[in-house]
Amino acid sequence: MKAIVIHEAHDLRIEDRPEDAPGPGQLKLRLATGGVCGSDLHYYHNGGFGTVKLREPMILGHEVSAYVEEIGAGVTGFKAGQLVAVSPSRPCGGCKYCLEGLPNHCLNMRFYGSAMPFPHIQGAFRESLVADASQCVDATGLTPGEAAMGEPLAVTLHATTRAGGMVGKKVLVTGCGPIGVLSILSARAAGAAEIVATDLSDFTLALARQAGADRTINTAQDPDALAGYAAEKGHFDVLYECTGVAAALAGGIAAMRPRGVILQLGLGGDMSLPMMAITSKELELRGSFRFHPEFAVGVALMQKGLIDVKPLITHSVALSEAESAFKLASDRSQAMKAQIVFSE
Amino acid sequence: MKAIVIHEAHDLRIEDRPEDAPGPGQLKLRLATGGVCGSDLHYYHNGGFGTVKLREPMILGHEVSAYVEEIGAGVTGFKAGQLVAVSPSRPCGGCKYCLEGLPNHCLNMRFYGSAMPFPHIQGAFRESLVADASQCVDATGLTPGEAAMGEPLAVTLHATTRAGGMVGKKVLVTGCGPIGVLSILSARAAGAAEIVATDLSDFTLALARQAGADRTINTAQDPDALAGYAAEKGHFDVLYECTGVAAALAGGIAAMRPRGVILQLGLGGDMSLPMMAITSKELELRGSFRFHPEFAVGVALMQKGLIDVKPLITHSVALSEAESAFKLASDRSQAMKAQIVFSE
Amino acid sequence: MKAIVIHEAHDLRIEDRPEDAPGPGQLKLRLATGGVCGSDLHYYHNGGFGTVKLREPMILGHEVSAYVEEIGAGVTGFKAGQLVAVSPSRPCGGCKYCLEGLPNHCLNMRFYGSAMPFPHIQGAFRESLVADASQCVDATGLTPGEAAMGEPLAVTLHATTRAGGMVGKKVLVTGCGPIGVLSILSARAAGAAEIVATDLSDFTLALARQAGADRTINTAQDPDALAGYAAEKGHFDVLYECTGVAAALAGGIAAMRPRGVILQLGLGGDMSLPMMAITSKELELRGSFRFHPEFAVGVALMQKGLIDVKPLITHSVALSEAESAFKLASDRSQAMKAQIVFSE
Amino acid sequence: MKAIVIHEAHDLRIEDRPEDAPGPGQLKLRLATGGVCGSDLHYYHNGGFGTVKLREPMILGHEVSAYVEEIGAGVTGFKAGQLVAVSPSRPCGGCKYCLEGLPNHCLNMRFYGSAMPFPHIQGAFRESLVADASQCVDATGLTPGEAAMGEPLAVTLHATTRAGGMVGKKVLVTGCGPIGVLSILSARAAGAAEIVATDLSDFTLALARQAGADRTINTAQDPDALAGYAAEKGHFDVLYECTGVAAALAGGIAAMRPRGVILQLGLGGDMSLPMMAITSKELELRGSFRFHPEFAVGVALMQKGLIDVKPLITHSVALSEAESAFKLASDRSQAMKAQIVFSE
Repeated sequence: MKAIVIHEAHDLRIEDRPEDAPGPGQLKLRLATGGVCGSDLHYYHNGGFGTVKLREPMILGHEVSAYVEEIGAGVTGFKAGQLVAVSPSRPCGGCKYCLEGLPNHCLNMRFYGSAMPFPHIQGAFRESLVADASQCVDATGLTPGEAAMGEPLAVTLHATTRAGGMVGKKVLVTGCGPIGVLSILSARAAGAAEIVATDLSDFTLALARQAGADRTINTAQDPDALAGYAAEKGHFDVLYECTGVAAALAGGIAAMRPRGVILQLGLGGDMSLPMMAITSKELELRGSFRFHPEFAVGVALMQKGLIDVKPLITHSVALSEAESAFKLASDRSQAMKAQIVFSE
Repeated sequence: MKAIVIHEAHDLRIEDRPEDAPGPGQLKLRLATGGVCGSDLHYYHNGGFGTVKLREPMILGHEVSAYVEEIGAGVTGFKAGQLVAVSPSRPCGGCKYCLEGLPNHCLNMRFYGSAMPFPHIQGAFRESLVADASQCVDATGLTPGEAAMGEPLAVTLHATTRAGGMVGKKVLVTGCGPIGVLSILSARAAGAAEIVATDLSDFTLALARQAGADRTINTAQDPDALAGYAAEKGHFDVLYECTGVAAALAGGIAAMRPRGVILQLGLGGDMSLPMMAITSKELELRGSFRFHPEFAVGVALMQKGLIDVKPLITHSVALSEAESAFKLASDRSQAMKAQIVFSE
Repeated sequence: MKAIVIHEAHDLRIEDRPEDAPGPGQLKLRLATGGVCGSDLHYYHNGGFGTVKLREPMILGHEVSAYVEEIGAGVTGFKAGQLVAVSPSRPCGGCKYCLEGLPNHCLNMRFYGSAMPFPHIQGAFRESLVADASQCVDATGLTPGEAAMGEPLAVTLHATTRAGGMVGKKVLVTGCGPIGVLSILSARAAGAAEIVATDLSDFTLALARQAGADRTINTAQDPDALAGYAAEKGHFDVLYECTGVAAALAGGIAAMRPRGVILQLGLGGDMSLPMMAITSKELELRGSFRFHPEFAVGVALMQKGLIDVKPLITHSVALSEAESAFKLASDRSQAMKAQIVFSE
Repeated sequence: MKAIVIHEAHDLRIEDRPEDAPGPGQLKLRLATGGVCGSDLHYYHNGGFGTVKLREPMILGHEVSAYVEEIGAGVTGFKAGQLVAVSPSRPCGGCKYCLEGLPNHCLNMRFYGSAMPFPHIQGAFRESLVADASQCVDATGLTPGEAAMGEPLAVTLHATTRAGGMVGKKVLVTGCGPIGVLSILSARAAGAAEIVATDLSDFTLALARQAGADRTINTAQDPDALAGYAAEKGHFDVLYECTGVAAALAGGIAAMRPRGVILQLGLGGDMSLPMMAITSKELELRGSFRFHPEFAVGVALMQKGLIDVKPLITHSVALSEAESAFKLASDRSQAMKAQIVFSE
């Protein structure tokens, strides 16, 4: 079977790898669709990010859907041919954080396509994949492309649960890449009353409006628009910060009302923050990292028609053209989510 | 102008009353639509409930929409002819609970159509009404009937905010009168993943399904169905208890998982509770009473199309036929919400 | 070795049992002191409580301290002769509740001296005990009697964490048996500003004052005293309900302010509740059941001198006189906690 | 009467000012003691901080105790000669934040000795002061110096309530000036299980230990000591950041466990933060600003002997020597809190 392997920055290869057989509790899957994520792009363009660096070839990919092909011993509830969304999260279930209900902080996490430990955790961009049945969520009724959106949707649903109740809240989203637009969909599905979104690209802002943003601001064209929300100590209850850029965060902070909650999703390096505003308005900056129960929740909300991610999938390419998906996904002027079709 | 006045149980009269003039900060309104609520029915059938008893004639009604007719000094943001939803809640803004952000617990509350203090607080079922501008929320785009649903919707949205985050939660609703079905709509709008609803009437359960319930149970026909959720210490995260009946609450408690939250909305007398289950599963029984910011939130969510209350309005009658609305509203086999049309 | 075995109500025997050897990860302990708890008394007087009934002989006891005698393979951090407090809580670490950070709701819990499953879980009133090292907390600096108070103290600290922040709160404690007085100590250690306690016994109320209650009320002598707190919708932020008696709970509810939190600790049967007050004041009734991390916390707070439980230990008897401890512990006019000394 | 007036940086004068008479609801007070706070020092050394700059002469001071001298119309519950702690916080009681229960974010706040609005809000370092009765809390049983600590203690108690439940928490305090040491006292009074404190001065660290710190670290002498807490993703649940220095915050962040809460109390300018750690450990950085109900709570906890601030008062000088208090308070090698005695 073929797999998409990153060797170093800009060295992406499609290679043959042997298939695995499912053990007890596992499923053998034929991959359907894989989405290219920002961290995949970091490996592709830079060989990593921060202190996370490629040290050996690694199969990329962690946003995937697949068809059940073979069912391991002891697994019930699945049948051959069924479409499933596959969670890339594999906590150990035994460490202290797993036992505190924080599996996303597992000390022994094996998250698909991650160069954090060494040897690296191999990813899911491969024609054949063996996964634990507990990673697989029935996706009947969804397209393979939608099912592969389960993972980034889980990220923004997790951030939304981190925010506490969302009913009636005024929400600002800075940065309208896939995570930003999924944040809009998530906040809307959780009862937000008003959503304003900012970005530098008219293309992504059009998708933000389609996802439910009440107002969009192109901060390249209208850099002072957010300042209009700063009167009387600010306007927004919740900020999804999806840029990782200090200026965007600072602009958002000025528009936040006292006790507002900032969900930091954009992964950047060190950022300079206006601490005086954070202290005097008693803002809460909350990191949000990955997800766990939210993966199945997101699939269910899509199945019920409460969240529609289809407009976000702007490009689908064949496996043989995989590298073009990486190039498209890097261009916010024309692409939102680029996916690779492994099989129909 | 005419008003609907309750004198004692079963003595409902349409009487002439003088119109008021708007003072500073007020609006004079021409009533559009008024909905009959459970507490109106308590006055109609029993002359009150619990220790709350009619001691003088009282204009009923607190679920109303209206058209702006005249604008008092200092009021901005309204124009004649505009449809508004009118909140019946008038906290004093000066007592200790108002200053703690708990206006629904105001020590000097004047809530429309309430016999709690004496002299009673007169209600809003009257052709002409003078209200504070701060009670009035623009309802442009809604029908007068929808706008009059703003009040009971605020009740269930308040309960929903009392539940904390709702994303992905498994929800049980016991009792599918208007508050129960609005609880379904509210939980769905807040991101609930699974909703099961119970009632004794197939008519209301059909509306519950239309509102988004994934499964409905007629407990008259299938009294043991909830027991199927009791395995492994229970299934549901949240219970909206809308019956006020001890047996319904006890059945719900058996189906709740550890740390589940019970929102007590149904107003009954004393109820016998299975305390052993509450203690050993660490359930949380939370009273939910009226609302405040949720009134404007509900109107906005209806305007955005995120909550659709129209199917709940099963009956509309003319003012001259008002008493028939009280009779219809008492019959769950054929009516959900009965409204009175004061003007077109 | 000798063990205290309950055969049926009023049939308490001291019997010989074989000693066990420690396996890997375990400690062999020589018991120091064991405290008699309310559930032990239920078995002694009634053969059980509610649906929990003795069906075979069972060693009682779950409040114990012990000396380390032998150290199993792989255990570090303990040495022979060391005093430890032994937690009776043994969750499985693998079920869904354990993995959600709720080990007190473990589906496979084996809590010492409990007739809930069959075969029953044997208890810790035995001269020699083999326990998992993870159950044992260093108690150096404490007396064996204090160390044996680690368990009931953990119960009230757990309830206190269930209440959220306690700083500056006004606290009511109804029922001043050991759990009530430990609730006073816990609330005081957590920053409560005002503590009022009620009971029917002057003996226990004197200990309540010594533990930090600002005011005590003997409701037998002064049944209307709590009513003085009902003005302006009530006074108390938090209620520790430690009686399990409906009248005590109802009296407490009348004295609670809006949004007050009721921690239900007293285990009774069904109780009739004034639901109108719970709803209209938006009270929160929260069950609190056992504990987990709070066991080690309580031992640490005693070691630091922040909580002093010594005045509560009113009686200590030799193992040969064990039954007298059960009789003493049942008499609130002269005893608070009665303990059994297994070894010096 | 005499007042301590700052004209510009380093220009501190003792000037004569006329006395005021108490209006209805007010008390005329004879000042007892005033403590010098960090913001007083900013005015003294730099003429302000950040964008807050002196534009006219301003009486300094907001940490004061006083004796009741004259009682205005309608005031009850006070008598002449009584010692009171005086809160410097005067929210308007009518703006939207006051009505949300957030008076510390009042849009019209008049906080003693603050150059934020213009004309400036005059402070309380004056022999005679007229205050609203609602600002005054009975301090019977305290020394005037202790009573004057009510204000900074309220700051740290507010931060502690912002942290939620503290029972059993592992706490790190970075920076052991008065706010840092009061944070230690507050965390201890709220049930923290372990407290580690850092500073650059052995003098302040000795007071930190006296206040209850289990371990102190002089980061000048032992810069790597905190790194020992970084294993397994970190150790501390709560960080009181009292330096306003980016390096201290970054060192603290590395030692925080997942989901840890950082209370930002130190007021600095912009700070560079390690966002990757905040995101991936899902830390929560919460601003904490001033206080409101915590003022009376702190006085009560001191009266009950649960918090002892006396060791922090290292210097007391006469009014005529007031400037020496400002110089002493700036020197962490020998002073913690310096106070000015206005009258005995």
